[in-house]
Amino acid sequence: MQRYLLEIEYIGTSYAGSQKQPKEQPNTTKKIVTVQDEVEKAISTLTKTKTKTIFSGRTDAGVHAKGQIAHFDTELELNPSKFVNSMNGLLPKDISIKELKKVEKTFHAQKSAKARYYRYTIANRAQRSAWDENCLLVRYPLDIERMNKSLSYLLGEHDFTSFKKVRTSNPAKICNMYKAEAIRNGDFVYIDFIADRFLYNMIRSIVGTLLLIERNSLAPETLKDILDSRDKTKAGSTISPEGLALVRVIYNNNDINGESL
Amino acid sequence: MQRYLLEIEYIGTSYAGSQKQPKEQPNTTKKIVTVQDEVEKAISTLTKTKTKTIFSGRTDAGVHAKGQIAHFDTELELNPSKFVNSMNGLLPKDISIKELKKVEKTFHAQKSAKARYYRYTIANRAQRSAWDENCLLVRYPLDIERMNKSLSYLLGEHDFTSFKKVRTSNPAKICNMYKAEAIRNGDFVYIDFIADRFLYNMIRSIVGTLLLIERNSLAPETLKDILDSRDKTKAGSTISPEGLALVRVIYNNNDINGESL
Repeated sequence: MQRYLLEIEYIGTSYAGSQKQPKEQPNTTKKIVTVQDEVEKAISTLTKTKTKTIFSGRTDAGVHAKGQIAHFDTELELNPSKFVNSMNGLLPKDISIKELKKVEKTFHAQKSAKARYYRYTIANRAQRSAWDENCLLVRYPLDIERMNKSLSYLLGEHDFTSFKKVRTSNPAKICNMYKAEAIRNGDFVYIDFIADRFLYNMIRSIVGTLLLIERNSLAPETLKDILDSRDKTKAGSTISPEGLALVRVIYNNNDINGESL
Repeated sequence: MQRYLLEIEYIGTSYAGSQKQPKEQPNTTKKIVTVQDEVEKAISTLTKTKTKTIFSGRTDAGVHAKGQIAHFDTELELNPSKFVNSMNGLLPKDISIKELKKVEKTFHAQKSAKARYYRYTIANRAQRSAWDENCLLVRYPLDIERMNKSLSYLLGEHDFTSFKKVRTSNPAKICNMYKAEAIRNGDFVYIDFIADRFLYNMIRSIVGTLLLIERNSLAPETLKDILDSRDKTKAGSTISPEGLALVRVIYNNNDINGESL
């Protein structure tokens, strides 16, 4: 048995998240297709064996990825470049494989991960553009300095209950935030987050709160007060997933604060 | 009567070019919608008067624009930011207005133009990506130095018959090429062209020929030989419009060689 790592890119708009969560959406009759469904279908076709994958973690419905990581086991010896090529031939246009490589059997896409790096992309200008894709339009000017002051209160280990979806079965609430930073690039603003883990809806809730602070020119300390309250009703609304992408999964502690990001 | 200039962006994929060309496509029963149709419909709705526009020039079916320019006349005094806002509310998602401004009545979007700046975008890597949009995937490695050597033969005033669509009613064939340059940016390659005018299908035919030279590692002089032959049958195939965008229309001679591009 060999273990292989897959690096996966996707535009999440048409998918019900990266992974099946059968208990989360019981009342829908709509067919729910996940990125994992599509990836497993392609691997199973190529290996001629029903194959399961383990993803580094779930991305919410509509969230994108530039570097999602998964692993799977197979009896076969795979040729990486041929296999990636065949996968990309089978997968829909909005999912692609960047890399396949053999890994040690001790590697686990989820359990071996030390941190995740997410980016929320905002088009910050008065008008929409025909070229806008996978970003959120914010028409009022964003003050990067004030945003970074707000975000600085999230750094370190905190109870993030205030930014966690209320109805979820996962009891986790403590996260260690290594990076939370806004960057302006022309008329785009990126908000980057690196943490050991992220709770369900957490980044979308933080960004929604940050935009509420910006729109009303509230004090940056507002974000700290909301974090400390551990009360989800204090947070701003959970913002659209269209601007959110999982950029990278970090497996080496040295990469967490690395310039290489 | 006031004259207004419009700066227009669009993703051309769903349109039959920027402008109506009634004689070019007589045998189709498919409804042909152009960018101009959509823009005129929005202006006419807002001004409550059937209004015609003049575009700087036609872009082929499927070609995009980051800075197409048009002008129109109206009796009304328009508020630029309100008008742009209303236009963007009416126009489909893949067309947007960047700017509206009042201009002298001597300004003419087509006749006043000194040059056009186009960019062809290529994703140059072994695998497609879910994030690829409005670019062409070329899997074999491109040699930027050789491409620029080839492109250098196009600079200056030439008869571009070799790269002009055979069946077209426009007799023009001489163009003055001010810039023809390939640039690598990560795994993307941009090919930039600035000329006083471009013939029908000309850039797509040049890029198709350039890629033929690259794929077969032919001598860069091949492009010169094909140009000099004035024979369209010598050129490579006319490549897909999906990577091509009109970046800017230049109305000031000083901007043609400017660093500002």
